[in-house]
Amino acid sequence: MVEKVDYNNLPKATIKRLPQYYRLFKQLLDENTTRTNSRKISETIGIDAATVRRDFSLFGELGRRGYGYDTKILREFFAHLLGNDVDTYIALIGVGNLGHALLHYPFQRRNRLQIVQAYDVASNPLVGTTSDSGIPVYDIADIKSHLEEDHIETAILSVDTPHAQEVADVLVAAGIKGILNFTPVFLQVPEHIHVQSIDLTKELQTLIFFTINDIRIESDND
Amino acid sequence: MVEKVDYNNLPKATIKRLPQYYRLFKQLLDENTTRTNSRKISETIGIDAATVRRDFSLFGELGRRGYGYDTKILREFFAHLLGNDVDTYIALIGVGNLGHALLHYPFQRRNRLQIVQAYDVASNPLVGTTSDSGIPVYDIADIKSHLEEDHIETAILSVDTPHAQEVADVLVAAGIKGILNFTPVFLQVPEHIHVQSIDLTKELQTLIFFTINDIRIESDND
Repeated sequence: MVEKVDYNNLPKATIKRLPQYYRLFKQLLDENTTRTNSRKISETIGIDAATVRRDFSLFGELGRRGYGYDTKILREFFAHLLGNDVDTYIALIGVGNLGHALLHYPFQRRNRLQIVQAYDVASNPLVGTTSDSGIPVYDIADIKSHLEEDHIETAILSVDTPHAQEVADVLVAAGIKGILNFTPVFLQVPEHIHVQSIDLTKELQTLIFFTINDIRIESDND
Repeated sequence: MVEKVDYNNLPKATIKRLPQYYRLFKQLLDENTTRTNSRKISETIGIDAATVRRDFSLFGELGRRGYGYDTKILREFFAHLLGNDVDTYIALIGVGNLGHALLHYPFQRRNRLQIVQAYDVASNPLVGTTSDSGIPVYDIADIKSHLEEDHIETAILSVDTPHAQEVADVLVAAGIKGILNFTPVFLQVPEHIHVQSIDLTKELQTLIFFTINDIRIESDND
């Protein structure tokens, strides 16, 4: 029933909502809720019902008129769509305060996302040890061979700002295809490399702008 | 020269780019670059030149035809716009691994954003001490009076997922107006409270979706 979708034509905003839909359907299934509809989805995750319907319609017939959405089917659909029906192994680069917190972050809780390797420069005393979260910390100079051992193509970048670009270059040379970038640097990478940035200062300043100007927006919590 | 702008009519996407413009103009001024233009801005921060011009035009005449943008004027304009010409004090709620990392995060480096108080439940041994980053850690039960001491209206929420909503309720009751939410919970808050969410699992899943499907998007690094 599900039609072929050219993912390159999906709106970026829709793509960013996919993990929220996936989480919701997992939760509904846990609660033994067998079906739902766009209005209930909207109330639970704060994305308006018309947006939900429009997003879902991009993937063909996910629901049935008068029935709504079957949670089990949708959970499997989104799991597959997000590559979460297989394990994804991830490397963390930069074991400072933020990197250390990310090693402990429960990405893998109910998701098949696992940080399995960490890296830092040889001068970091953690290099050559196993972190308190059980993950080996390697010298970044050895990254290429270690990444290959675990077929890793995704990295989390949490190094200090001045080193961000040079480390990104190392990652690209070592075969990384996707970088979750926690530095505020606009990384220069080849076209086939994907970068998703989380800039904490930017988010905080955006929040303060909304707050001091008391701007009311569509409450999509994004 | 700058016209009155109704911030409620600004596109949300524009608002989210304001901190990037601000950071750029600070950097340019540091480098003694006195003027710039939309093409150079685009190359440096990866937002396309037409978008830059459209964003800036929303604030009236920020530049001059044939001259471009004066970095000093623009830096001051964005500093004021983002409330960064005065100090903003912030409370951090939840001193676990992520909270601890956020206490050390350099929000205040070149920005007037400072975490000056931290909170956790009384059973956390850090409560009643000063954290290694020099910030007092208070019992969340005492939050209202402490927030008032430092005129704090902004909070960073980094508690465990199951406690997110109940703690958000406490924050609202204590007078917090803006919440930077690091939990994956869609917080139910009154209409006058602003929530900006950073959902690390969602960002990682979005990156993986882009990577496994090799989706090329406008490289705005966002």
